[in-house]
Amino acid sequence: MTSTLTPLFTDLYQLTMAYGYYQLHMHEQRANFQILFRKNPFKGNFALCAGLANVIDFLNHWRFQEDDLTYLSTLKNPAQEPLFSPEFLDYLKQLKFNCDIYAIPEGTVVFPHTPLLRIEGPLLQCQLLETPILNIINFQTLIATKASRVCRAAQGEEVIEFGMRRAQGPDGALSASRAAYIGGASSTSNTLAGKLYDIPVRGTHAHSWVTAFKDELTAFKAYATVMPHNGIYLVDTYQTLNGVKNAIQIGKQLQNEGDELLAIRLDSGDMAKLSIEARKLLDEAGFKQTKILASNSLDEYAITHLKQQGATISAWGVGTALATAYDHPALDGVYKLSAIQNENKEWEYKLKVSEDSIKTSNPGRHQVRRFFYNEQYMMDVIYDIDLGISDIGEAILIDQPKQIKKWDDVDAYVDLLQPIFKAGELITPLPSIHEIRQNAIREITHFYETHDDQIYPVGLEKSLHELKQKIVESLHTNI
Amino acid sequence: MTSTLTPLFTDLYQLTMAYGYYQLHMHEQRANFQILFRKNPFKGNFALCAGLANVIDFLNHWRFQEDDLTYLSTLKNPAQEPLFSPEFLDYLKQLKFNCDIYAIPEGTVVFPHTPLLRIEGPLLQCQLLETPILNIINFQTLIATKASRVCRAAQGEEVIEFGMRRAQGPDGALSASRAAYIGGASSTSNTLAGKLYDIPVRGTHAHSWVTAFKDELTAFKAYATVMPHNGIYLVDTYQTLNGVKNAIQIGKQLQNEGDELLAIRLDSGDMAKLSIEARKLLDEAGFKQTKILASNSLDEYAITHLKQQGATISAWGVGTALATAYDHPALDGVYKLSAIQNENKEWEYKLKVSEDSIKTSNPGRHQVRRFFYNEQYMMDVIYDIDLGISDIGEAILIDQPKQIKKWDDVDAYVDLLQPIFKAGELITPLPSIHEIRQNAIREITHFYETHDDQIYPVGLEKSLHELKQKIVESLHTNI
Repeated sequence: MTSTLTPLFTDLYQLTMAYGYYQLHMHEQRANFQILFRKNPFKGNFALCAGLANVIDFLNHWRFQEDDLTYLSTLKNPAQEPLFSPEFLDYLKQLKFNCDIYAIPEGTVVFPHTPLLRIEGPLLQCQLLETPILNIINFQTLIATKASRVCRAAQGEEVIEFGMRRAQGPDGALSASRAAYIGGASSTSNTLAGKLYDIPVRGTHAHSWVTAFKDELTAFKAYATVMPHNGIYLVDTYQTLNGVKNAIQIGKQLQNEGDELLAIRLDSGDMAKLSIEARKLLDEAGFKQTKILASNSLDEYAITHLKQQGATISAWGVGTALATAYDHPALDGVYKLSAIQNENKEWEYKLKVSEDSIKTSNPGRHQVRRFFYNEQYMMDVIYDIDLGISDIGEAILIDQPKQIKKWDDVDAYVDLLQPIFKAGELITPLPSIHEIRQNAIREITHFYETHDDQIYPVGLEKSLHELKQKIVESLHTNI
Repeated sequence: MTSTLTPLFTDLYQLTMAYGYYQLHMHEQRANFQILFRKNPFKGNFALCAGLANVIDFLNHWRFQEDDLTYLSTLKNPAQEPLFSPEFLDYLKQLKFNCDIYAIPEGTVVFPHTPLLRIEGPLLQCQLLETPILNIINFQTLIATKASRVCRAAQGEEVIEFGMRRAQGPDGALSASRAAYIGGASSTSNTLAGKLYDIPVRGTHAHSWVTAFKDELTAFKAYATVMPHNGIYLVDTYQTLNGVKNAIQIGKQLQNEGDELLAIRLDSGDMAKLSIEARKLLDEAGFKQTKILASNSLDEYAITHLKQQGATISAWGVGTALATAYDHPALDGVYKLSAIQNENKEWEYKLKVSEDSIKTSNPGRHQVRRFFYNEQYMMDVIYDIDLGISDIGEAILIDQPKQIKKWDDVDAYVDLLQPIFKAGELITPLPSIHEIRQNAIREITHFYETHDDQIYPVGLEKSLHELKQKIVESLHTNI
């Protein structure tokens, strides 16, 4: 879907600011912006970043089209004058994306305040890219994080993403399917997502299949005939345990034909109780291998609760709660200007002050160093690429600014932001979605081992912290 | 965006069921499905329906593409056999949409249990359309409803939709902009939505504009130079009231040039207090016409609260809460088979039973009659088009099944479901989005006049209710 978007997919104020920079001859001044979020979603202690492949797809097609410019030429200011000059529209027409982009790979566990992407390039382009990049990264990071939580609750059992019908619009469904797979879901019901993103697709049948026939047994028999070797039977159209008995009857028929009853699906009622009773009926009839799939307003809390009640469910269809991140439906990612080159091509550091000091942005052009000891996550340190970082040093924790933490008890590190685009050219091969997912599952497992409910330390490297303090003070003096 | 979707934008189980119907030669059996929701969103007492134009766009382009069929041919069942036969894929290849669709016009106030769309046509096609139609209608209806609530809180003042950056993916943003406009927002920041849907676009400038210059006053001066007659100044980059003073200084310069200071924007802090102080500063300096625009985590509750505190804000930029329907991010719309023709072309009525009797679906092919007295909304009655409805009759209220209500105190009615497609052909001219919005605003105003916090009565016409009871009883007897 992202390939059908044009640069017009942005807030109008990005275009008016771009026009302003153009008139002031600032539009090609080199600038540095960074994306970060400030609060972990779902009251959790991490996020799982996702969406980069779609950002890349968007940028690979980032070119104003003739009809975009025609549209812009029709816009007026409140005095009914054209909002943009013809010269500016000509400039946009020939504009090619030529920024540098550094990004944390998809499927990496990330934390508040850490830059997820760094965009360096002409001020005008960086400004236009703010809204679309935020839109894509915010949503997919949110859903990948939600999926990882749901999968953790399922304790390694299969999670199928079923959210399409109540997702937020067509791309809400497609992006959610992609991000849910990255976060650990094993498949989706969304066929187009399967085609576009190479995600396994799965499905059973609906109540309407059952009601289309004269009774449930007839419907099940018909299904067994037309879907051999693919039998998952939805048993709650009329009365669940009666449905289970009908499924067992079909299962016997399937056995005689050398086929098997793969699973039944529960979709309503007291699912703990029903699953226990259904399991008993299935076991007594010799269908010990037949799985019980559940789907009905599930999320990580409902799954945990069902497990606590002894539910004998072994596969989970999770819909709305996953595809819309129902309990926290937006990630609060922001995109901040942190440095700009002056006429002498020197970088000037920038920040936005806030009365809430944790919201005061960090100046500079950043890299994030993640330290490990014995392969365990120790801390993330944000440093400025010009100021650098020492082998042994100190960082000031962002969430607890009184606390200073050294990285002396570490034995390895990795710099998280990887070069993606250089002067508009994609310079890195993209991992497959399956590699991203495997990496995400490995990362999360690893992270949970040591940081189950703890706040993970994210610090600002000491010299960067001091520089920030100086800038804040000078701003206060000026005001 | 919907025009780029293919019929593959559906749940896999719709395709496997379609294949099943095809094998059983049931695929062209005529069926009737209806969409309804069960619970008003946002703890409110109505919804505002939206999304039909996008459903129409989707259906006008509904044709399997070569690469869709190639993709489907690669899918396997658990026994690693092809999931679909080549004959079936050939059938899909030549398939043309040829259903009848009836729909309640966009921008109509609607209630739980009322069919919003009725789809009648070949069983296979109706089944494939379930997921995409639900996806589009659920989301846009949700957002249009949210927008109408936000606009009501704003008491006629301008509401600008600003939600793109945290919306649920690209189409989450585009569909939200469209639906928010229908629900009463006056404009959007989303430029592409402006182009695609003919919605007014608006914008100010960002903090990054201010931080890109050496100080705020310089940034404002630059903005005044490049954006004459378009001056809305964001005043909170460093310190809000100081920002207001800088804006006033620019305002004086603008006045000298025959221009004006249109508005300032507040984006953080105690907005009631800041708006009152800013208003005072502006008034004292003679800028009584300058508006105060606010934007910072706003929704209907925050706006109401600010007004109660005496905030002097006259335009509202509403973002995440509106574009994601943050406090209720999904509408629970369902799509139910309610009748199917047997071999003798007679309609057989269908329903899905539920232990929760309100979830037992309604059989038949429905129309919805809305009764009025003195132009006031009186009640909605769902009736079967074959059973009909009398001039004076009774309905059983769905939410209070013990209560029977007559339509004797009425003086007018309208049948809400309008014919849209006949045998796949669009047979009705589409209203412009501006007409839809005007109608929505009129409907909501009207509805609030008489039903501020009341539950609106929706009933099942008596003969339909009796038929339903009979079917439920016969199902219980069979089980």
